[in-house]
Amino acid sequence: MTILSEVRPGAYFDSVILMQLQRSLADLPGVIDVGVVMATPANKELLAASGLAVESPAGSDDLLIVVKAKDKKMAGDALSQVDGLLASRRRGVTQEFRPHSLDVAVQQLPEAQWALISVPGRYAAGVARNALDVNLNVFLFSDNVPLEDEVDLKNIARDKGLLVMGPDCGTAIINGIGLGFANYVRNGSIGLVAASGTGLQAISTEIHNLGSGVSQAIGTGGRDLSSEVAAITTFQGLDILARDDQTDVIVIVSKPPKPEVATSLLVFARRIGKPIVVDFIGYPPPSRQVGNIHFASNLTDAARLAVHLSKESPEFSVFGEKSVDIDTNQGFLRGLFSGGTLAYEVLLGLQAFLTPIYSNVQIIGSQRLQDVWKSQGHTILDLGEDEFTQGRLHPMMDNDLRLRRLFQEAEDPEASLLLLDIVLGTGAHPDPAAELGPAVAKIRESANQDGRSLEIVVIVVGTDADPQNVDHQVDQLQKAGALVFSDTTGAVEYISQRLAPAVAPPFKPMALNFFREPLAGINVGLEIFYDSLKDQGAKSVQVDWRPPAGGNEKLMDLLAKLK
Amino acid sequence: MTILSEVRPGAYFDSVILMQLQRSLADLPGVIDVGVVMATPANKELLAASGLAVESPAGSDDLLIVVKAKDKKMAGDALSQVDGLLASRRRGVTQEFRPHSLDVAVQQLPEAQWALISVPGRYAAGVARNALDVNLNVFLFSDNVPLEDEVDLKNIARDKGLLVMGPDCGTAIINGIGLGFANYVRNGSIGLVAASGTGLQAISTEIHNLGSGVSQAIGTGGRDLSSEVAAITTFQGLDILARDDQTDVIVIVSKPPKPEVATSLLVFARRIGKPIVVDFIGYPPPSRQVGNIHFASNLTDAARLAVHLSKESPEFSVFGEKSVDIDTNQGFLRGLFSGGTLAYEVLLGLQAFLTPIYSNVQIIGSQRLQDVWKSQGHTILDLGEDEFTQGRLHPMMDNDLRLRRLFQEAEDPEASLLLLDIVLGTGAHPDPAAELGPAVAKIRESANQDGRSLEIVVIVVGTDADPQNVDHQVDQLQKAGALVFSDTTGAVEYISQRLAPAVAPPFKPMALNFFREPLAGINVGLEIFYDSLKDQGAKSVQVDWRPPAGGNEKLMDLLAKLK
Repeated sequence: MTILSEVRPGAYFDSVILMQLQRSLADLPGVIDVGVVMATPANKELLAASGLAVESPAGSDDLLIVVKAKDKKMAGDALSQVDGLLASRRRGVTQEFRPHSLDVAVQQLPEAQWALISVPGRYAAGVARNALDVNLNVFLFSDNVPLEDEVDLKNIARDKGLLVMGPDCGTAIINGIGLGFANYVRNGSIGLVAASGTGLQAISTEIHNLGSGVSQAIGTGGRDLSSEVAAITTFQGLDILARDDQTDVIVIVSKPPKPEVATSLLVFARRIGKPIVVDFIGYPPPSRQVGNIHFASNLTDAARLAVHLSKESPEFSVFGEKSVDIDTNQGFLRGLFSGGTLAYEVLLGLQAFLTPIYSNVQIIGSQRLQDVWKSQGHTILDLGEDEFTQGRLHPMMDNDLRLRRLFQEAEDPEASLLLLDIVLGTGAHPDPAAELGPAVAKIRESANQDGRSLEIVVIVVGTDADPQNVDHQVDQLQKAGALVFSDTTGAVEYISQRLAPAVAPPFKPMALNFFREPLAGINVGLEIFYDSLKDQGAKSVQVDWRPPAGGNEKLMDLLAKLK
Repeated sequence: MTILSEVRPGAYFDSVILMQLQRSLADLPGVIDVGVVMATPANKELLAASGLAVESPAGSDDLLIVVKAKDKKMAGDALSQVDGLLASRRRGVTQEFRPHSLDVAVQQLPEAQWALISVPGRYAAGVARNALDVNLNVFLFSDNVPLEDEVDLKNIARDKGLLVMGPDCGTAIINGIGLGFANYVRNGSIGLVAASGTGLQAISTEIHNLGSGVSQAIGTGGRDLSSEVAAITTFQGLDILARDDQTDVIVIVSKPPKPEVATSLLVFARRIGKPIVVDFIGYPPPSRQVGNIHFASNLTDAARLAVHLSKESPEFSVFGEKSVDIDTNQGFLRGLFSGGTLAYEVLLGLQAFLTPIYSNVQIIGSQRLQDVWKSQGHTILDLGEDEFTQGRLHPMMDNDLRLRRLFQEAEDPEASLLLLDIVLGTGAHPDPAAELGPAVAKIRESANQDGRSLEIVVIVVGTDADPQNVDHQVDQLQKAGALVFSDTTGAVEYISQRLAPAVAPPFKPMALNFFREPLAGINVGLEIFYDSLKDQGAKSVQVDWRPPAGGNEKLMDLLAKLK
């Protein structure tokens, strides 16, 4: 057996052509295995792992062809056919006129709204800038694009009311036409915004398989929900789907975003008058549902939830009305709990919406309250923790500590919402509302006199068989002016709406007609995507793209500066 | 206004008595506020925060009484009544005979199965050891008990087939009787094991409010699922509820356990022939359901899921049969994905069951695969990551990289299950199964010849409208001998059962009659729990407990050594 190799320095070929060349060489007589790759370090490692190791100075910009054959002659014969095979591939290409630049392509297809870009990563940002210059939305399939370029491109797009999907955006469905990798799914009322390509494909597929359909599916690229990019495309996607009357339910899917990005998205989503299914894969969901937001636990679950919600008679008015009724309140929450898990669950629920939030049962280190005897900002305290119960009764039995803290919080002008829990049952205080109710009334009266807004929310856990009589407890609290919930879910839903800041994302709204007119796209890069648009009946032009300056980076830089 | 205080050095009083003394003093003429506390640093801080600061050398073992009154005389008058009030409280106590030790109490109530212990933390472990010595199960309400004592007590109990619930166990319901804090709930078919007191109360309450009921509710104490305790009580609780024919559905609730503890519990739970609802509050659920395990997203959700499952006609046989059919397979998983999110979701699902597991899309740092070109142990690879796609086509288009890696994994004798995904749709390979199917057949044939067990599982994502025809893809793969699933959920369910190690927890099974006979309990500590047992119709004896050696720790140590 012999291994021979050949290098074509600085040669640029479409990856599809490389794959086809590899296949053709492998079919030649005596050839055992073939590698045809751009000689990146990763590809050279892969060649080695496949028994095709060669010593070669070839670098990332060079084409490396390695042939393993039965003998030296057969290997050499194979290599000698490379030029012929490449030429025949080129002859096979259609003879239609192909513009060499985006500008010419736009003249050829003036109705184009989208540019599909799949050139190698280091050229991709330049092509995308050109596309935005000529007012095209961008579907950026290319990977290995620097993060700074992504931020820059998305800022440009946002200011122009255009969308940049990607980089590394594998898939989208716009007005019924799949871009990149996309499944053929029914048209319907569920809109998707996905930072995950296969996530989008798996959910849209499941929606179809369940008999429902997709309105629009917007890819954002996997880094959109990072701190740096701050979800620019996801915000834009949510905003346009919120305004799109063909979309009844919206699904957001992503790997876990940065917490502060998650918070801003959830607060924004919370104020959209449509059900939103959120699948932040691997992110601990605060609960199954918070208002209009439904948390899915995986892709299949997200699809099922969306289909279920899209079939329900939409009760948008409920959320719409609530978001009118419930003014936001710029003060702070102070939660004083006797039940540790209730405190923890409320913290888990609210940390998604109110940030920062502090506690003595912190979920993440930065939430740790410095001094448990003094609240700061939004604070949730478990008064049943060891630090509070040494040498005194548990707060479920003895309200003394809680009453003292309640009055302390009420005196803090920064506090605007006080939250308590009451857990009934044997062993607990025989009539907690008889002590807490009057305190609530007194606090409210005193706040009213001072002209302060200070509301009190209570979670009561108990049954009709409990010795304290749950109805009697709730009644006393309501008469005292408290808002009473039977579990943390309701309280979290209310407080998240009440205290979360109003969000007005600073972007120019995209025109809805980008999603209404028949899709027309200009393709720069892999021809397979051009073929796919044509197959789906969409208008398309393929740009016959070549790396600028023949791929010479120094020359490219120089050309860019001359522009 | 005057503040006067008094110290009773080394005086021990039940916290209920302290609370009552405080109330009585507060009702005296001219008294504005009162603090009656053991003088721990926390309590002294709290006094200060309440405007009752006093300079006092009193320490944690001393009783500190602080009175704020209109003038000095009134404050002095109040303090002078302390002895009288304490004496009247003592006189109020029933005159029935009260044993001074557990041993005598057991003679008085020989049918007792349980000891309820709520003495101050530093005495609690000693009392609990006594209880285990006389073969009582322990409900340990006390907090501030050292972790080493917890581990020690639970090890003793496990070896004797006894249960230690706690320390800091707030609640339990055994055979219809609530221990500690417990709600009055209907008897039913849902069993609970909870490392969270209010979690247990909130779920049992919601189950009752939904019209269903509870068979047994076992508290474990909040630290049971720590690495140190390694869930001894939770395992015992699961085991006895699995054997209890009055329990149809089991709920486990806890704050997020240590990952390795979670894994061992989930693997154990997976082999129980009953539906299990898991609410590890704040733990990212691998999916909505994996086999018999249903992941809840919060307490209310856990209750609803349990009620729903308890009403379904139980299909235990399915899981039972599966766990017979599916032999465990001691080899390793190798997952080769083209879809990044599918890889991530499978990793998320399987990390709960297979540990350690490695990946290039690791969820936690320790999962990072050292060399992406070489698998180790259980490995899940996303072949669409940048490191694999520079200068070559995405694996959804080009199977070359995946085929090479597939044969590489198949040659590794440690690999026993190969997992692939295929994502169909426009842009993707026109007939992936035509290339992957023959490879699957070849690998299986070669493994058979070597007498190796090597199975191949494929997840296919696609619709009936996709150009590749999903049925045709599945058909080719099945004919080649692959097991095919339509989403990650099914694949995770299968693999978790197939590869997770069999677990035989090394403990002496508890006798079921602890849960069948009418509950009889010996109470050591807060009388309120004794009253509660009596109120519920359970037999009980109150031990008239005093700190050993009058609370003198040096003397206590000496006495312990003399034993």
